[in-house]
Amino acid sequence: MGARDFLTLEDCGRAELREILDLAAGYEAGRMDGTLAGKTVCLAFFEASTRTAVSFELAARRCGADVISLSERGSSISKGESLVDTVVTLDRLGADAIVLRHPAAGAARLAARFTTAAVVNAGDGCGQHPTQALLDLYSLSRALGGFEELAGVRAAVVGDILHSRVARSVIPAFRAAGVELALVAPRTLLPIETGAWGLPVLSSVDEALEWGASVLYMLRLQRERMTGARVPSVAEYARYYAVGRRHLEAGVRVMHPGPVNRGVEIAGDVVLDGASLIPDQVAAGVAVRSAVLAIATGVAQEVAA
Amino acid sequence: MGARDFLTLEDCGRAELREILDLAAGYEAGRMDGTLAGKTVCLAFFEASTRTAVSFELAARRCGADVISLSERGSSISKGESLVDTVVTLDRLGADAIVLRHPAAGAARLAARFTTAAVVNAGDGCGQHPTQALLDLYSLSRALGGFEELAGVRAAVVGDILHSRVARSVIPAFRAAGVELALVAPRTLLPIETGAWGLPVLSSVDEALEWGASVLYMLRLQRERMTGARVPSVAEYARYYAVGRRHLEAGVRVMHPGPVNRGVEIAGDVVLDGASLIPDQVAAGVAVRSAVLAIATGVAQEVAA
Amino acid sequence: MGARDFLTLEDCGRAELREILDLAAGYEAGRMDGTLAGKTVCLAFFEASTRTAVSFELAARRCGADVISLSERGSSISKGESLVDTVVTLDRLGADAIVLRHPAAGAARLAARFTTAAVVNAGDGCGQHPTQALLDLYSLSRALGGFEELAGVRAAVVGDILHSRVARSVIPAFRAAGVELALVAPRTLLPIETGAWGLPVLSSVDEALEWGASVLYMLRLQRERMTGARVPSVAEYARYYAVGRRHLEAGVRVMHPGPVNRGVEIAGDVVLDGASLIPDQVAAGVAVRSAVLAIATGVAQEVAA
Repeated sequence: MGARDFLTLEDCGRAELREILDLAAGYEAGRMDGTLAGKTVCLAFFEASTRTAVSFELAARRCGADVISLSERGSSISKGESLVDTVVTLDRLGADAIVLRHPAAGAARLAARFTTAAVVNAGDGCGQHPTQALLDLYSLSRALGGFEELAGVRAAVVGDILHSRVARSVIPAFRAAGVELALVAPRTLLPIETGAWGLPVLSSVDEALEWGASVLYMLRLQRERMTGARVPSVAEYARYYAVGRRHLEAGVRVMHPGPVNRGVEIAGDVVLDGASLIPDQVAAGVAVRSAVLAIATGVAQEVAA
Repeated sequence: MGARDFLTLEDCGRAELREILDLAAGYEAGRMDGTLAGKTVCLAFFEASTRTAVSFELAARRCGADVISLSERGSSISKGESLVDTVVTLDRLGADAIVLRHPAAGAARLAARFTTAAVVNAGDGCGQHPTQALLDLYSLSRALGGFEELAGVRAAVVGDILHSRVARSVIPAFRAAGVELALVAPRTLLPIETGAWGLPVLSSVDEALEWGASVLYMLRLQRERMTGARVPSVAEYARYYAVGRRHLEAGVRVMHPGPVNRGVEIAGDVVLDGASLIPDQVAAGVAVRSAVLAIATGVAQEVAA
Repeated sequence: MGARDFLTLEDCGRAELREILDLAAGYEAGRMDGTLAGKTVCLAFFEASTRTAVSFELAARRCGADVISLSERGSSISKGESLVDTVVTLDRLGADAIVLRHPAAGAARLAARFTTAAVVNAGDGCGQHPTQALLDLYSLSRALGGFEELAGVRAAVVGDILHSRVARSVIPAFRAAGVELALVAPRTLLPIETGAWGLPVLSSVDEALEWGASVLYMLRLQRERMTGARVPSVAEYARYYAVGRRHLEAGVRVMHPGPVNRGVEIAGDVVLDGASLIPDQVAAGVAVRSAVLAIATGVAQEVAA
């Protein structure tokens, strides 16, 4: 079996999710070191990133791949080269997988049409961020005691859903795993997909707790993407859509994809609290992305065969 | 035999070119993996690059070298450190080869005076870009069926020759390999070397085809280096100096060092057409640069001895 | 024994300094290659650097560690992520050592409170730069014929001491090794620590030579950190605080941490003169930083046990 792109989780079912997470557990246990030897993984990051970029790079290195890092600064992108020409370049230089982060939604899908290398979507504008949702599921299922425990758990996705590619991947993936979801956001920060999702929309974190949420999935307020009258004041936003110490007393678990705005959507002392899964989410990144690279390059299929 | 600098192809004869390309074929066939083990290759890129930087890095990695990447951003260059002091630093840190891209013509030659490491010119301002010309010859000879087939082929170098270090390396190298050349450019984009080259100067792509060109070597229009009245309008430039689908019907092969300005010197649908060697040029980069690194570090000579 | 932070040399005694330098000599002799295999070293450089960044990277690579490079540009720092969250991220991604350069004094100490990885201070604002002082001692003791020869040598630290983290590490380390020190600087470029150091303050390089200095440790004039009337004119500064060819006739050795301002604190023809230890200082970087990484990750202690 060959390489395959990894663009979205929208069509990913429960069984497939479970397979990926089991594979990640194998990588975490160190049972599959060196499985990418001889493969070339190119990281093409056209937007800033710490945890995604570093964990993909560590995953690829520890699996034995040759890793090449390309960023907008310092590459021909700054000379106006098109995404397609960059992808063709990496293809012809022998990339087996291209891990792409790009500011435009749909960039990964476009790229995949121009290369036989597997394209892994590491975040495309307000589109998708599938590996983030996978590591979220991985850490939540760990915290709950197993993948089966995800079924029936109530989780609220809180905040700036409009600008969040993370939400667009987390929502279908968590639902496929059996998690019951609600959205908590002001109307101005709800996207056009809201109707299709058909999820309850609540108006504050407090209301989410009343609804029975035991998980709060907090999103980064992306003020940099807002203009004029549409920028909420931080104080007003925080009053309804931030999590603070008082919420922790209700026994909820707090998640956040990072980077966090301390004091905006999350109080500073919550980030590293025992109830926070945020450090676990980061820690899951290397194992989950190892699994994704193994699937993308066809290595996982060979091992399984 | 020891290390040697790789600064220009101006004095490189036919036999030597052939040796380098044969060595590159050996690397492409995978017969020489690991030959740079124990060597330290430093990539010092003080200008943006995708294909040159990535292919040098992949070449050095696959040959087993320790690779260090240095860019202007993030290095002491931004504190005003001189090129010479940077080169001395890399020398004393133990570099065996310094691959240098720099915006000033002559930078590589200057650098070579201050280090015993081999300096490989990866493009110096409007000076030279020798490894580009080598990979061009490599892919053209492949397309024609062998190095011998280059003799007598007619190729036109088209466009912004004035600002092109690529042209300054391609012209002597193609001539040494027996290719017959013509230049196609407006007078304002012809350099001072034109007289010395003594090549026919034609005034449009159409005229080049009449002259018998079976290869069009298109150059990037470097509008970023032009000012005021000297900036040609894209429409007017394209009328005479761009290649489009209608030219392909004449059976020519199209080459371009990249990055391309789609819709300026080359129509978008030509870049990935079957008549285009552009993807092959990119693909040749790793093998050709492996060969150059092997020669520069003295490894090729040891293997041959 | 486990990992330990490497933040300052202020409390480092003579015996400990000697141990570190002996360990560095072991690395320089190539006796300890591969000793960091299985360790993950993260370079987090939030300020420009050539020699520190490259030598740490080469040190970690040659010792067999997995190396991840993170810079402000291209990381979530540009999205406003706090230093603490970045450090927690690297911790949870599995870093064994975090090599940190940061523009704020105290950053490394703050970082160390939030990770079990060893934090190595690679320069924190106007705070400390301990590995620089170690490699300075290493190259000076080599030049003098051994660590014992440092005792009683007279060295003048010359120039912009106010803004120099290098001076703040060199002064305690050189004193612990037995070097006799004097300061040479205008009053406006002396820091608040001057009183506590209790060192003689001289008013020109000429005066330092009269005092008996056989080593001139020149500092970079950091004009970029000065404003308004406090910026000295280069000509006036150079008259008293620069070293030129005429000083070399007195037989002094010249040191400088780099990058140098040629023609400001040091005449261009002095940098690479035989009396200059500057290239030796650079060369010492890889061995000394290998030793520091070995101590920081606990590898040195295991080898010794």
